Amino acid sequence: MDKRPLGVFDSGVGGLTVVKEIIRVLPSEKIVYIGDTARVPWGTRGKKTVINFSQQLTRFLLQKKVKIVIVACHTASSLALPLLKRKTKTPVLGVIDPSVKEAISKSKTGRIGLIGTPATVKASAWGKALRRESSKVKVFAIPCPMLVPLVEEGLVNHQATRIFTSEYLGPLKKKRIDTLILGCTHYSLLQETIKKVMGDVFFVNPGKTTATALKKFLIKHKIQGNQQKPIHELYFTDLSYRALDDWKNFSGNLGHVRIKEVDLDNL
Amino acid sequence: MDKRPLGVFDSGVGGLTVVKEIIRVLPSEKIVYIGDTARVPWGTRGKKTVINFSQQLTRFLLQKKVKIVIVACHTASSLALPLLKRKTKTPVLGVIDPSVKEAISKSKTGRIGLIGTPATVKASAWGKALRRESSKVKVFAIPCPMLVPLVEEGLVNHQATRIFTSEYLGPLKKKRIDTLILGCTHYSLLQETIKKVMGDVFFVNPGKTTATALKKFLIKHKIQGNQQKPIHELYFTDLSYRALDDWKNFSGNLGHVRIKEVDLDNL
Repeated sequence: MDKRPLGVFDSGVGGLTVVKEIIRVLPSEKIVYIGDTARVPWGTRGKKTVINFSQQLTRFLLQKKVKIVIVACHTASSLALPLLKRKTKTPVLGVIDPSVKEAISKSKTGRIGLIGTPATVKASAWGKALRRESSKVKVFAIPCPMLVPLVEEGLVNHQATRIFTSEYLGPLKKKRIDTLILGCTHYSLLQETIKKVMGDVFFVNPGKTTATALKKFLIKHKIQGNQQKPIHELYFTDLSYRALDDWKNFSGNLGHVRIKEVDLDNL
Repeated sequence: MDKRPLGVFDSGVGGLTVVKEIIRVLPSEKIVYIGDTARVPWGTRGKKTVINFSQQLTRFLLQKKVKIVIVACHTASSLALPLLKRKTKTPVLGVIDPSVKEAISKSKTGRIGLIGTPATVKASAWGKALRRESSKVKVFAIPCPMLVPLVEEGLVNHQATRIFTSEYLGPLKKKRIDTLILGCTHYSLLQETIKKVMGDVFFVNPGKTTATALKKFLIKHKIQGNQQKPIHELYFTDLSYRALDDWKNFSGNLGHVRIKEVDLDNL
């Protein structure tokens, strides 16, 4: 047993979709989360910037004495994970590796689609990881820049969201994929809209696969927690109206939480 | 005569629409611009964050020995300008004051519309400045959160842009405004689309009014420059594909420019 908390970081509030899944499978773990709401989104930034921000948030979590760092942000998992793993003694888990095996095991045709931010698609970390696991796989990756701002504005059922979903996903439908990886924390909120365009494909939700992989990891290394009703700590770098209004849209009710602002200058 | 450059800062590339107007009326001035592409957009952040970022960029420009700091970002002009003016000996000019007089002089009915980012509208700096100038004025302010990401994606003529423009501007049309302030650097690129919804109203483009006010200020204080073909310096905090691909969409050709990345840690 290990009472230290799980550390989770994300570019903003989207990572709370991952936290929700973690709490579902690991209800006795305390979570310390930091979301970089002062600098979100990361999906349209360069590699250097994403690595820089990721290192700052990782340092913050390590100061909180977490037993593992979970990189909930797909852009950070794509661009910064190898470096974070190399530089950190504490285990670091991203959202890509746990999902690769699931995508390959579920796909019958080996034709796998990926939607993500421009930076995630550009980094091609998903494609490389999938092909490393299976040489037969064909990966079709599409950047969907407008979906993050639409979800952030709460416009999940807006006409414009349907228009962009058709526009982005249409080409994937033509490629006859049978499995689609939702490669950004925000996309799980759009699953129903995406399903209307894509029809009968298998959805890989990296929030879920990461939570399952995390549970296995904790059991394997015998570092599970056993807290009764843990009080989770949520930190944000900008705690103005936006984060305060938004966060529950991504996670639903997380039980007991403490919400605090952390100054960028202290990262 | 004063050879020191003009300093301009913005949250990203949008402020180059203001630079374009400045170069048009002041072709003999050298400009040092810094756009915070590593942390754009600012329009959905809190006051503390916007003030913090604005102070960093102002310090950077002062180190470049500029003779004046122009705050091209409307969110920063709304939230940080009073503090910057108080803390800086070098003159600081925002985009609000120069446009207030124009709006009031052009409006016949005193019914003035303002569109801006959520943070700009929330700050109500525009409303206060307009009412300070004329007690008879009625201000109708609407936040337009989706317009910035749409313009940033180059979707000026996209169906979704028309949908959101109608959605945001429709209520202003019902208020029978006769003057509309384009309260964000990105909106001047949408003027034609907005015109189709609003019909015959007078548009206040703060980029233009700020350039005119700046020229008057330089003449009044006898600090005009006289450079032949000045080489402008454009700094960005993230100089990945995004800023490099985008900036000319906002400014067109600016003549001779030098583009450099500046590390956030050095601000």
